[in-house]
Amino acid sequence: MPFLSDNAAAVHPAVWAAMQGADGADRPYDNDALSQSLDEAFGALFGRECAVLWVASGTAANCLALAGMVQPHRAVICHRAAHIQVDECGAPGFFTHGAGLMLVDGDHALITPEAIANAIAPLRRDVHQVWPQAVSITQATEAGCVYTPAQVAAIGASARAHDLRLHMDGARFANAVAFLGCTPAAASCDGGVDALSFGCVKNGAMNAEALVFFDSHLADITRYNRKRSGHLQSKGRFMAAQLLAMLRGDLWLANARAANAAAGEIAAAAPGRLLHPVQANEVFMTLTATERDALRAQGFAFYDWGADGARFVTAWDADAGEVTALARALAGL
Amino acid sequence: MPFLSDNAAAVHPAVWAAMQGADGADRPYDNDALSQSLDEAFGALFGRECAVLWVASGTAANCLALAGMVQPHRAVICHRAAHIQVDECGAPGFFTHGAGLMLVDGDHALITPEAIANAIAPLRRDVHQVWPQAVSITQATEAGCVYTPAQVAAIGASARAHDLRLHMDGARFANAVAFLGCTPAAASCDGGVDALSFGCVKNGAMNAEALVFFDSHLADITRYNRKRSGHLQSKGRFMAAQLLAMLRGDLWLANARAANAAAGEIAAAAPGRLLHPVQANEVFMTLTATERDALRAQGFAFYDWGADGARFVTAWDADAGEVTALARALAGL
Amino acid sequence: MPFLSDNAAAVHPAVWAAMQGADGADRPYDNDALSQSLDEAFGALFGRECAVLWVASGTAANCLALAGMVQPHRAVICHRAAHIQVDECGAPGFFTHGAGLMLVDGDHALITPEAIANAIAPLRRDVHQVWPQAVSITQATEAGCVYTPAQVAAIGASARAHDLRLHMDGARFANAVAFLGCTPAAASCDGGVDALSFGCVKNGAMNAEALVFFDSHLADITRYNRKRSGHLQSKGRFMAAQLLAMLRGDLWLANARAANAAAGEIAAAAPGRLLHPVQANEVFMTLTATERDALRAQGFAFYDWGADGARFVTAWDADAGEVTALARALAGL
Amino acid sequence: MPFLSDNAAAVHPAVWAAMQGADGADRPYDNDALSQSLDEAFGALFGRECAVLWVASGTAANCLALAGMVQPHRAVICHRAAHIQVDECGAPGFFTHGAGLMLVDGDHALITPEAIANAIAPLRRDVHQVWPQAVSITQATEAGCVYTPAQVAAIGASARAHDLRLHMDGARFANAVAFLGCTPAAASCDGGVDALSFGCVKNGAMNAEALVFFDSHLADITRYNRKRSGHLQSKGRFMAAQLLAMLRGDLWLANARAANAAAGEIAAAAPGRLLHPVQANEVFMTLTATERDALRAQGFAFYDWGADGARFVTAWDADAGEVTALARALAGL
Repeated sequence: MPFLSDNAAAVHPAVWAAMQGADGADRPYDNDALSQSLDEAFGALFGRECAVLWVASGTAANCLALAGMVQPHRAVICHRAAHIQVDECGAPGFFTHGAGLMLVDGDHALITPEAIANAIAPLRRDVHQVWPQAVSITQATEAGCVYTPAQVAAIGASARAHDLRLHMDGARFANAVAFLGCTPAAASCDGGVDALSFGCVKNGAMNAEALVFFDSHLADITRYNRKRSGHLQSKGRFMAAQLLAMLRGDLWLANARAANAAAGEIAAAAPGRLLHPVQANEVFMTLTATERDALRAQGFAFYDWGADGARFVTAWDADAGEVTALARALAGL
Repeated sequence: MPFLSDNAAAVHPAVWAAMQGADGADRPYDNDALSQSLDEAFGALFGRECAVLWVASGTAANCLALAGMVQPHRAVICHRAAHIQVDECGAPGFFTHGAGLMLVDGDHALITPEAIANAIAPLRRDVHQVWPQAVSITQATEAGCVYTPAQVAAIGASARAHDLRLHMDGARFANAVAFLGCTPAAASCDGGVDALSFGCVKNGAMNAEALVFFDSHLADITRYNRKRSGHLQSKGRFMAAQLLAMLRGDLWLANARAANAAAGEIAAAAPGRLLHPVQANEVFMTLTATERDALRAQGFAFYDWGADGARFVTAWDADAGEVTALARALAGL
Repeated sequence: MPFLSDNAAAVHPAVWAAMQGADGADRPYDNDALSQSLDEAFGALFGRECAVLWVASGTAANCLALAGMVQPHRAVICHRAAHIQVDECGAPGFFTHGAGLMLVDGDHALITPEAIANAIAPLRRDVHQVWPQAVSITQATEAGCVYTPAQVAAIGASARAHDLRLHMDGARFANAVAFLGCTPAAASCDGGVDALSFGCVKNGAMNAEALVFFDSHLADITRYNRKRSGHLQSKGRFMAAQLLAMLRGDLWLANARAANAAAGEIAAAAPGRLLHPVQANEVFMTLTATERDALRAQGFAFYDWGADGARFVTAWDADAGEVTALARALAGL
Repeated sequence: MPFLSDNAAAVHPAVWAAMQGADGADRPYDNDALSQSLDEAFGALFGRECAVLWVASGTAANCLALAGMVQPHRAVICHRAAHIQVDECGAPGFFTHGAGLMLVDGDHALITPEAIANAIAPLRRDVHQVWPQAVSITQATEAGCVYTPAQVAAIGASARAHDLRLHMDGARFANAVAFLGCTPAAASCDGGVDALSFGCVKNGAMNAEALVFFDSHLADITRYNRKRSGHLQSKGRFMAAQLLAMLRGDLWLANARAANAAAGEIAAAAPGRLLHPVQANEVFMTLTATERDALRAQGFAFYDWGADGARFVTAWDADAGEVTALARALAGL
């Protein structure tokens, strides 16, 4: 019973159907009709003009976004737990030609305007010190928590005040919006986000993520960087098809709601054990090694989280019976 | 009637079937059973141990291969017409952190040992000059021509004599092997190729290429570089499934033969017009602007090739009727 | 009365003399007799074979050393206060093509084996995480403190145990050795240092630092990197002459002792104010803004250190009268 | 009798004097009074505002200039014989993070507007191809020839027409201006040069070159790049002193005239042997191996130039007797 991650979940049937529907001949790269319609489709979703590029991974989305924003001698402020810091093999340094990450702390992997201000306060602005040029936040965070629109806006205001660009790693953006019940714009661009890695792979797609620029100038350079990094696939229509399928009928939201609900059921089974509020599809709990062994003996798969904890992740295709089984097992510990 | 390129052809039904068969849960990245079986599957094909990584584009395959072979202060010898020089937006410089390309000439986009020797002859080996560290050849070439096993071996010997690694851009490797009628090993590793970009996308796959290392040490660093460049997809099983489907029952060869046959039919219709021998699935012909207009008026799509030429490319899914129609139209000019 | 830094001190007369003595014709770059004698001269100093390259700045020395040790997808463990982190405009990321710095803490800007172990403990060794490949320590530290031979050896042992290379930023290595009273080898290579930025500019030279490799393999690649980064000057004899002048008659030690003595006199004037032990030529003191104003009104120049502190740096050419004047002023506050 | 190169010539007494005059305490890096006066001094020389940075080598000057002009996915058009291509260990690729060099041909290592146009003509402007962003010309060229003001202006007009920046490698700019007898502006910025590597090391300085930006925006980013590449020396006053000494009383012109005159005397001795017009301080001649042996037996040192040629370079400090001796020896062959 798989609660290891949402990153290897099944592909949603509607995504399959859209991909197969795209198999007819069309122009290569992103010149096909589907790729050409992405700006409009996402523009409608966010209620503003945007420029959208498909890429094959969240790492590519995040790092291409940052490469368009940050010069090599500058840096990106991010949380110490951020995926770009912890799990991308230094890809930000590769794509940006050496820009650094300035790590800040914050409960539940959330960044605050104060953290940004504190990171900048000791710096001199001269040629000797590395000055940040962007902030990157994760929505939902690596601790499964969600920035409210007000929190995003506060960070956006802080970023602008410090002349920083704002990137949002939205590998689980859908889960965040499903939790918030707000518009996707309210959870991102309305608050000042310049570029959003709009995650689909963890939410029912196969291998397409949407890199959404709310500032089209950033997209211009990124088109070159996408090619230059080997991410401009020739049969791009299959990438666009995945993204469009996710948007159609708000599949992205429906899938995220299913994953969130499953996580909620698990969390509710042992509320006293929670390490973080459960606002998306990840549940972090205090669990001793003995307890974890007991769960695994019952067939549950999940990652340890430190010496005395565990992480359970649910996906859009979570099996109701397995979720309930896990909840009961946790309650019974 | 599409003869623009093979890069946007349809996905073969067997590839679709294999992808759908891979949708069951498995481990992420390349830890799934299919990805883990690639070394063995390609090892059987080439008759020797190899290490195989899936990537999403030919550019990624080529440049990851080169990045594993070439230090930043060195260079790659390649033909002036090579895809890595002409059509990859400088990706080799990005992946290698600045290594250069040393361009050589040669008929039909073929490199010879003499060309390699001539490129090196004027160089001093000191810290001031850029010394090559690899040769990259394209099989079949950008002019649709094929290196014989003897030619590959001669280049391999030249490379070794100069202490250079040998990369083969095999975007159309299948077409070359289909033409040669030899083993895939004879067309590549037997001749000294260290790393092969084994193309599948132009030959019936969707978005997976196989990067085949005949020296596993090169694969080690490339695993990091693949992740670092955003090319380690989380649902890698869909990538591996495509590659395995291409190998099963030698689908890769059958598809290439079909494409080659179509090209042969077109070439035979106007042999006096050929700019290069037609040995794979690309036909380059002398055609005036007026003649090109006449063909386009009949519904044929293709690229101009210089002021007085045209390029016709066939794919595995070439429609027999359309091919014959083009052949007749050419004959009738 | 200048206590801002030692980085703009005068050039020692013996250095001037050596430079002028080098003006006769000789071979360019580092082919001149003086440059060719560096390995032997430093080899005698350290009592072991070494390969020595002159470069024009401490930043160049540090970053060329790291570039020879660390692959782009790896990282360097260093103190949060390290010069490479704080004052080099991201140069390590530039020279290493994106390798990161993993920051650790420690009193007096000293790193401990425990800090190294703690930095590594949470890491997984897979393609997703950045694994360190080197440690860089500063001797004397940015807080003016000195690693004993035993401390260096402990760090060296820790580095080897974790398969890490060890770099020492010795911008003030002379001051450290002068304090320790040990051999230069005991303070560096005997403890496992692989490459040492042997600082001269702050200690009487004009613009030459010695990059000393105790592993000559590291020097090989660095010769290319020095050229490639524009640091291979054509009249290298003037660079080598500076370094040789520093070694002759142990001028480097005599100069450092003078600077240390001046710092000691200042420290002794107000021992209760010291923020760090004074072991080299930097004095960090608690001083209120009012007190700093009072000192500046008397003509003393120095940097603030936080809101309630100040830093005084002495150089080889410290004026005895000015030092005593500062000591008295501090005592009288 | 040394005619190998001008790159290891002696330091002019006026430069020595200026350096020694700069030894008094001043602010570090380029905050000293001398460094701060460079913009004005060169502004007066060129008759327009400029921003001037000292650096330690021609490679650093050239590559920092290009790094400020060219994005990583673009390229620099230069002559196949250009120093940046032939003798800088790939430094342009390092400083620009992978931008390429597009090589063109031309007699006497001169580039023409036609060569620029021909290089661009076959290119498509899309994300697949590398488009140039700058032209770099060498004044005087690597063949010892000089662009007239009209030729520079024609290239400048061509560059602007193609939206390219123009860099001039002026390692021997002084020799070119001495030959032309025009203003330095006429030989550079009046014709559209955006950045000039104003060479001093080959012309009497020790280790300081002037990087002159006629567009101050380019200097802004270069200040960071200079630091980031380890080229911001802390005792910058000694660098500025060298440059100012070269300008004072037009020492740079006087020195260049002396070197040119010596080259002229050598050239006049065997005009039938000249491979290129002798317009600066380099003489390229047809000389058989036997003839070269005969010269070397008489004590003359010089480089072979291909199988049947030789290069003689004169410097500001050429010994009149030695020059005459060489001229006689050549005449007597």
